[in-house]
This record gives sequence, structure tokens and C-alpha cells, in this order.
Amino acid sequence: MKIAVLGGDGYCGWATALYLSNKGHSVAIVDNYVRRLWDHELGVQTLTPIRPLSERLTVWHQLTGKAIDLFVGDITDYDFLSSFIRSFEPEAVVHFAEQRSAPYSMIDHKHAVSTQVNNVVGTLNLLFAIRELQPDCHLVKLGTMGEYGTPNIDIEEGYITIEHNGRKDTLPFPKQPGSFYHLSKVHDSHNIMFACKIWGLRATDLNQGVVYGTVTDDVMMDEALINRFDYDEVFGTVLNRFCAQAAIGVPLLVYGKGGQTRGFLDIRDTVRCIEIACNNPAGGGEFRVFNQFTEQFSVLQLAEIVKSVGEQMGLQVEIDHIPDPRVEAESHYYNAKHSSLVKLGLEPHLLSHSLVDSLINIAVRYQDRIDPAMFEPQVNWRHARNQRRAGSSRKQQLLTKEAVSGAD
Amino acid sequence: MKIAVLGGDGYCGWATALYLSNKGHSVAIVDNYVRRLWDHELGVQTLTPIRPLSERLTVWHQLTGKAIDLFVGDITDYDFLSSFIRSFEPEAVVHFAEQRSAPYSMIDHKHAVSTQVNNVVGTLNLLFAIRELQPDCHLVKLGTMGEYGTPNIDIEEGYITIEHNGRKDTLPFPKQPGSFYHLSKVHDSHNIMFACKIWGLRATDLNQGVVYGTVTDDVMMDEALINRFDYDEVFGTVLNRFCAQAAIGVPLLVYGKGGQTRGFLDIRDTVRCIEIACNNPAGGGEFRVFNQFTEQFSVLQLAEIVKSVGEQMGLQVEIDHIPDPRVEAESHYYNAKHSSLVKLGLEPHLLSHSLVDSLINIAVRYQDRIDPAMFEPQVNWRHARNQRRAGSSRKQQLLTKEAVSGAD
Repeated sequence: MKIAVLGGDGYCGWATALYLSNKGHSVAIVDNYVRRLWDHELGVQTLTPIRPLSERLTVWHQLTGKAIDLFVGDITDYDFLSSFIRSFEPEAVVHFAEQRSAPYSMIDHKHAVSTQVNNVVGTLNLLFAIRELQPDCHLVKLGTMGEYGTPNIDIEEGYITIEHNGRKDTLPFPKQPGSFYHLSKVHDSHNIMFACKIWGLRATDLNQGVVYGTVTDDVMMDEALINRFDYDEVFGTVLNRFCAQAAIGVPLLVYGKGGQTRGFLDIRDTVRCIEIACNNPAGGGEFRVFNQFTEQFSVLQLAEIVKSVGEQMGLQVEIDHIPDPRVEAESHYYNAKHSSLVKLGLEPHLLSHSLVDSLINIAVRYQDRIDPAMFEPQVNWRHARNQRRAGSSRKQQLLTKEAVSGAD
Repeated sequence: MKIAVLGGDGYCGWATALYLSNKGHSVAIVDNYVRRLWDHELGVQTLTPIRPLSERLTVWHQLTGKAIDLFVGDITDYDFLSSFIRSFEPEAVVHFAEQRSAPYSMIDHKHAVSTQVNNVVGTLNLLFAIRELQPDCHLVKLGTMGEYGTPNIDIEEGYITIEHNGRKDTLPFPKQPGSFYHLSKVHDSHNIMFACKIWGLRATDLNQGVVYGTVTDDVMMDEALINRFDYDEVFGTVLNRFCAQAAIGVPLLVYGKGGQTRGFLDIRDTVRCIEIACNNPAGGGEFRVFNQFTEQFSVLQLAEIVKSVGEQMGLQVEIDHIPDPRVEAESHYYNAKHSSLVKLGLEPHLLSHSLVDSLINIAVRYQDRIDPAMFEPQVNWRHARNQRRAGSSRKQQLLTKEAVSGAD
């Protein structure tokens, strides 16, 4: 199948592109490298030293004989996107090409607006380009479990049947997203649902949980194929962040009580879920929603798992509770359905101590690249402007030393 | 009270600004005149010859002794908007400053994207400006009944209590908007709800029905204060359009079966609802939703009322059914609650034959300004690109004649 992976230079996108390529699909990556730019903006770097995309693709070709096409550009540019669709003629488009960090969207006005415009316009462009040029193409869109928030009822997969005053209807599940980023995904979902209705497009919205891990069989083949491992407060997902904290002996920072419960999945399941969605396309006019995660954990449960595994490895691991920088319930009911992908063949990699062990080991291996200042939350949901420090404390120390030298 | 009316040069905004000014409030209008620009773009004009805003405001001041402040600028420009908020220090902001036509948003890709970016960014800017500069200010936001779509259950005011698998929660009412414009209002609602939650802002979302009429006591005072009366397929609302059709003896164009049922209200109730909302602000952190309409009608019912009144006036009125250019149910269940504003004191002007009579009379008075080609729907929801004719058929005839003369 001809599959386009938009955002194929990112964390989930890169692993997905290789996985689909290795499965024999004809894959094209579309990316504008803005994710790498955000690292520079925030003064952070992935724990793992990732290579330039062109080098990654060359090595992949040498190792496997499989070529992944590369189209460099921004999908918010309709001319670029439509010329890509016209040229590659994808049968499925996997759309990861969005700003995906909640804290990034909450830094200030500019970041909130740029996140929503980037994500909403990119997805609108894609809907129009598919409609105009490739109307049978299956859109596989990455949504987020965060679209639902934490209602006091069971979370269904996209829709809920409501009985009310003696009548009944099946309607979109009510959304209570918790950041300007999560809101952008809710906006996307509504836009996509409408496009399926009026134009007969086929789309699958994958409401993904929090992803952990960095290793898949494909990225393991060579050091040059290594995937991102973000540990910072803005782009690092919580389990990866805890493993990095454990590796260098700083406390695991739990926001508030840690009772915040979410759906989680291993990145090896992310790539498999995408494949399942592509192999089982939605029908014409169908807007299908799958909840893409395998297990629920509270943040505190994850911290305790990392502490336990870390101590078995001989590390000293402490857990600190700090005031929650987000506005969210710190203890709540949470029961989200996630059976659709399993019915289509997903065999989950459940969170194991050996996986946590391997993640901590990766963090230990690259510990020199960790800047502990990057763990500390600097984006508070209650503020309209958050002043992030331009660099790290370590870098600031260096700058201070230089300044002192300069004064000599 | 110091009240800002964003979009105060438009149809509802102008009537609201005068009404609030006459009630003794200190009113400022913010507008960038883009609504007048869209008339030029579409080659249409309001049936009623509206004056430039500066002239309107001068006459208002002469007649009443009341000054309305004017700030010309675009609220998607954060610097402009924040300097306005800082300077005027409003206690309430009434936000009409959005692209409000469903067909306009469905013309093509560019109009869909510009509608969503304009509306979402304007509202995001406003949320941030209020949070940063005027945190107690009450946001009175115009939403639309079209956010709900036409579910097979009763429509509540913003929220619905759902019992599911033995548990219960009150959640945002599920949204099924029917155009890229209606979608933009759903995006706004989600963004505003979130801002109220994290920042403690106070907001009222007025999910307004379809407005009809053009006359209020205030705009009646002088010819120079006359309000818009849009009759074209893009910006004209359905009852006003039918009255214009009856006035010049062309058939009332009913889309499809005409069973499409919606909530409607008289523009005199629009202005009163806004006043009620301002006088009874939402609490800190409260995102309050009122359904702002007074009666439900199907499109065919309205056509039959106009036909009946027109015939009493001696006009010959026919009803034509044409294929529905929109994707919508042509017959459906519809029962939407609208008791909150009545509880706060709204005394509805229900649709009367005398009101329809007066609307038709206005259309007769200005019939020379009607271009019948502008009634015909040129925007089809099923197409991704709709080629609207640049001018009217009448203007095209003129152009043809000129071309012939030029060849002499």
C-alpha cells in the first residue's frame, strides 16, 4: 500500500515510517523539521542523539534495500501539500504532523495560537487535498485520549448512545480537553467528522494514550536509526521522563497527588495500531474512532514502578510531589474503552519491569546529555505568560563563568 | 456599564450597540469593516442603504447626545486588541466579530480556512487579553444553535446530564455542526470553556438561532441609522430572503423538502438578550450557555407564512423547491430548550403577520437594489470548490452591452 507519513521525522512518525516500510508498504515521509526547531527554541535535546533525516533514510536503504521517499515542506502550505498528494497518490495518509505538546501550547498567547492554527489548518488542508485529488485515500489521524478529559462516566470510543427524555441517539462523545493543544485535536476531530459526512471521505481518528519507550525492532537495526527520547518537561512523556530522572539520581517529580490516571501504550504498539488501521480502512463517509492505548495507570503508579525497577538495578530512586502546574483533577474516576484495535488484531506489549529496566538503561547510557534543569516544570496552566528560561541552568552557569572571565 | 461591542458595524452588532447606548451604557464599537469588504467580494449589497459607520455614529450622537466610542482594527491582531482592552477597560465584551455565514465558509478551501482562523484566533486573542488585562470582564460570546446540529434527542442549553453504565455526569452537549463556519463556533465554545476553567474567567455563550427583521426602536430614529438587510444566498438569513423574494415577485426558493427546522428570533430580541446577559454576568470561572431563540419553524413553514402575508398584500407569491445545496437532514426531530433567557426577563417578540408585512414592505421600498441572481444558491456543500459568479446577472448584462458598444 502507498502510505504517506506526515511528521515522519518525529517520535512516533519515525518509528511508524520504518515499521510500515519494513512490512513492504511504499512509504513517503513528509516533514518540515519544525520539531527539531522547537528543541532549539526550548534549549533542550532528545536524550538519544538522533541523526539528520537524510542520513537516517540512507542508512535504512542500505540496511534493508527499501527506499522511503522524502518530501520536505509544511502541510499548512496548501500548494506544497496538494502537489505532494498529486505526486505520491497515497492510499493512506498517517497524520502525525501536529504540534503535540500540551505544555508547549500553554507557554503563552503566541504558542497557544500557533499550536491551534498549525494543527487546525494542516488538517483542513489535508481534508481538502484528499477531497480534491485522492478522494478514496484513507486518512489515519492521530488524536489523543486527552480529548475526552476525565468524565465521571466510562469513556467510549468516539461515540456514546444517549437516552434522554424518552428518545435515543448515538452522538459524538462529549469532549473536555485540558490544554490548548488538546483543544486543537478536538477541533480537528469535529472538522474531520464533518468532511466525512459531506464529501464521503474515509477517516480513522486514533485517540492515542501517552506513549512510552523508544525502541522498536526497526530502529534497533543501527545506531543511525535511533529514535527520539524526550525527557524534558515540555515534550517528554511521563514514563520516559521518570526513567531519565531515575538514571541520574534526581527525584521522580510527580505533579500533585499523582492520582491523574491516563491510558498508556508502548511505542511498539503505536506502530502496530497504525498498520492495523491502514490495513482495515474506514468505509466511505465513515468517521471511525479508536481509543489507542493498552493499559491505564495513574502517574503515581508509574513512579512507583520506576522506583521499584530502579532500586532492583541498584539505583537510589526517590519520589517527590510538587504542586501540579496543570489544572486537572488529581484524583478521579477513569475507565476508558479500548477494544476496537484488539478486535482487529492488536496484541499489546503490556508494561513490564524489563521494559522499564531497558528504558532506564538507555537513559544511563546517554546520561551526559541530560540537563536536570529540564525536568522542572516551567509552564503553569494558571498563567497566561510563562517565562521559560532561555537555556538550562547548566548552560546558564557556563554563561555566568564566561561573563566573569570576560570581566577579568 | 462599560460594554465593548466587537463587530459593531454588522447586522446584529449595530442594533446591539445602539440599544445598549440608549439604555445608558458606555459603549465602544470595535470593527475592521471586513463585513463591507465581503459584500464587495461577493458582488452583493445590503437591501437597505447603510451609511458609513462614522456617519452613523455622528447622527446617533446628534439625536441622542450619546457618544459611542469607535476603535477601528482587527481583533486577530493581538497588539491592537490588547491596546483597546487596556484603553477602554470594558466590564463586558459582546463578541460579534466573526465571519458568520455558513455558505461563505463553504465556498472553497481558502474561505474555510480563513473563516476558522479568523474566528478561532480572534476569540483566543480575546480570552488572553481579558485574562491579562481585565480578568473580571464578562465575555458575552455569540455562538449559534447550529453548533448542536439536529440530534434525535432534545437539545439542552449547553450541557446534558448523562447516565451511563450506572454512573452519571453533566457534560458539554455533543456537537454536530453543519458547516466550516458552524464548526468554528464549536471550536470557540471549547476554547472559552477551557479558559473559564483554568483562569477563572466569566463567559456567556449565546447559542443564537436564525435572526430575522432589521428594525429596532433605535435604528428607526433616523434614515442614517438604518440597519443591514441581507437578502443574498450567502449572508441573507432565510426569512429576510423570502420577504425580498416575495417583494419582487420571484418564487420563494425552499432548499429540498423544507423540513429543516431551526430556532428563530426577531432582531429586537437579539439586542434584549445581549442586555440581559450583560446585566446578569456569569460567575467567576463559569462558562454559561444560553440558547438564544424564541420559536422553532421549519423552512417550509416560514415560506408558507410569507406566501400568506404576501398574498394578503396583493402580491403573487409562489414557492419553489430546489435541490438542497447543503448536506443536512430535510426532515428530522427538533426540540431545543430555550428557557434561561426567559427566566431572566426576556419577553419574546413572536413572529407575527404584521412583522412579515413590514419586512416585505421594506423590501418593496428598496426593490431597485435587489439583484434576483443573488437568490440562487451558488455554494454547494458537496463541492470542495464553488465558482461564484463575479458579479450579478444584471451586471453581467450591463458588461455585455458595454462590450458590444466598445466593439462599435
